[in-house]
Amino acid sequence: MPSYLITGTSRGLGLEMASQLSKNSENLIFATARGAPTPALQKLIDGSSGRVVYVQLDAEKEESIKSAVVQVEKHLNGKGLDILINNAGVMPFALNGVATMDNLSSTFSTNVLSVHLVTSAFIPLLQKGTEKKVFNVSTTLGSIAHAATYRQMPAPAYAVTKAALNMLTVQYSLGYEDQGFTFIALTPGWLKTDLGGDAADLPVEVGAEATLKIVQERGKEDTGKFINIKVAGWEKAPGRMNYYDGEEVAW
Amino acid sequence: MPSYLITGTSRGLGLEMASQLSKNSENLIFATARGAPTPALQKLIDGSSGRVVYVQLDAEKEESIKSAVVQVEKHLNGKGLDILINNAGVMPFALNGVATMDNLSSTFSTNVLSVHLVTSAFIPLLQKGTEKKVFNVSTTLGSIAHAATYRQMPAPAYAVTKAALNMLTVQYSLGYEDQGFTFIALTPGWLKTDLGGDAADLPVEVGAEATLKIVQERGKEDTGKFINIKVAGWEKAPGRMNYYDGEEVAW
Ligand SMILES: NC(=O)c1ccc[n+]([C@@H]2O[C@H](COP(=O)([O-])OP(=O)(O)OC[C@H]3O[C@@H](n4cnc5c(N)ncnc54)[C@H](OP(=O)(O)O)[C@@H]3O)[C@@H](O)[C@H]2O)c1
Ligand SMILES: NC(=O)c1ccc[n+]([C@@H]2O[C@H](COP(=O)([O-])OP(=O)(O)OC[C@H]3O[C@@H](n4cnc5c(N)ncnc54)[C@H](OP(=O)(O)O)[C@@H]3O)[C@@H](O)[C@H]2O)c1
Repeated sequence: MPSYLITGTSRGLGLEMASQLSKNSENLIFATARGAPTPALQKLIDGSSGRVVYVQLDAEKEESIKSAVVQVEKHLNGKGLDILINNAGVMPFALNGVATMDNLSSTFSTNVLSVHLVTSAFIPLLQKGTEKKVFNVSTTLGSIAHAATYRQMPAPAYAVTKAALNMLTVQYSLGYEDQGFTFIALTPGWLKTDLGGDAADLPVEVGAEATLKIVQERGKEDTGKFINIKVAGWEKAPGRMNYYDGEEVAW
Repeated sequence: MPSYLITGTSRGLGLEMASQLSKNSENLIFATARGAPTPALQKLIDGSSGRVVYVQLDAEKEESIKSAVVQVEKHLNGKGLDILINNAGVMPFALNGVATMDNLSSTFSTNVLSVHLVTSAFIPLLQKGTEKKVFNVSTTLGSIAHAATYRQMPAPAYAVTKAALNMLTVQYSLGYEDQGFTFIALTPGWLKTDLGGDAADLPVEVGAEATLKIVQERGKEDTGKFINIKVAGWEKAPGRMNYYDGEEVAW
């Protein structure tokens, strides 16, 4: 019975990943959110035969994380946590250019510090787990090499913090590979969620499925990598800005 | 008379760059520091025939930056500021591994937020300048691609924040290239300063000279790049961890 903990499952990609994972009766999913369960999350929990467990967790608040660890540990009843998916994130804008950006620190807190706080707090339970895998949800907008491609995107704080998240992922990977851990930064695709908007490339279901394929299939050989989802029909092609080829993304 | 503003000139690389620039009687240098001038900075100012001007500037404090802009503007008397060197920085440790890191937010403030606050505040004066060049002092430890090389370095917050600084540099570069600006992230080499320690590769004089060569020689064609200093005898060679070849560093 592999166990998963996902941050930010109130809506969007986090909720959809929890939902898809719950279809497999082998899985146990700790679906965490900073607020009380949203109606959609509550519905998922109610129909999950106990496989989806809600845990309050604000990824930026150490106290909240601490009590989440206690609850998860209790529920696991001596077992470890197998897989952690750091999914919570925000993409605020600086509509009048990078110099007017007034959300750099708060975005860093939500997109990077949170991942450090959650990961470090759950390391002891992950060490007892059978998989020892941590996936950090990043984005191609966090690729410094590809930054010029997304120059029209007025989200500099998002770009800066996701690049930082990538380095954090690599620092953890280097720190824990001796213990058999896997740390991967992944890009879930441009998805139709509150964050991605209606013009996005893919329905959230498709992005979640492709993301979970990385979660299932990738392991130690891929630790420290930055991996793109793979979606049929979305290969790299001339004139196509976004592509989903399952390959590594340049830093 | 090209004008320069350098952050963090109380000691180390910033002080040495100010000192070397002051040897050219054409230059005007705003040597900024968060505290009152250190004896070394005061000595430099006193012997500079007015070419080195002290301005109080704490790069993390908006009020301090604001009043620095006012002072610099007054001194320039209608002219613009030509070159900004964001040099101030810190490298705190996490000696017991990345999970024990307790300085991520404060390091982000000093190494990244500061550069955003200072740069955005000086943009109007830089727009009036003749060079429009901004150099952000980064490090090879901020290269995600090279992170494994430096795995023994217990400074994850430094690595994460300097990677973020690199992306910030690129975001500014993309935002201001239309206006003829140059934004470059550079690595000054491993230098014998308080930060670099005694075991470092190069005396600070050599690193400062090589850094200023980038500042003088690089311009618009190189905006958005991550550039290594060049030092004779320090070419890339098998078995050599650090090299100073004047080339771009992988992100
Ligand atoms: N959608 C895309 O196109 C796309 C593309 C690339 C990467 N991503 C990444 O995918 C992840 C999920 O994005 P999404 O599209 O699902 O966004 P979303 O629909 O806006 O959902 C964001 C989720 O993060 C949660 N969250 C934010 N701050 C939190 C905190 N401090 N503690 C706990 N949860 C917090 C939100 O909770 P609340 O409901 O309480 O606000 C929400 O559940 C993000 O990391 C994003 O950067 C998305
Ligand atoms: N030395 C190396 O080997 C090396 C290698 C690669 C990159 N670098 C980079 O080079 C830059 C200079 O480093 P260094 O070796 O000269 O270090 P250093 O000797 O420790 O000096 C750091 C300088 O930054 C200043 N500073 C820190 N926070 C500040 C703030 N909030 N406002 C204004 N000034 C502030 C310090 O001022 P106080 O005296 O007031 O503390 C000091 O002047 C840093 O960005 C560093 O990351 C150094």
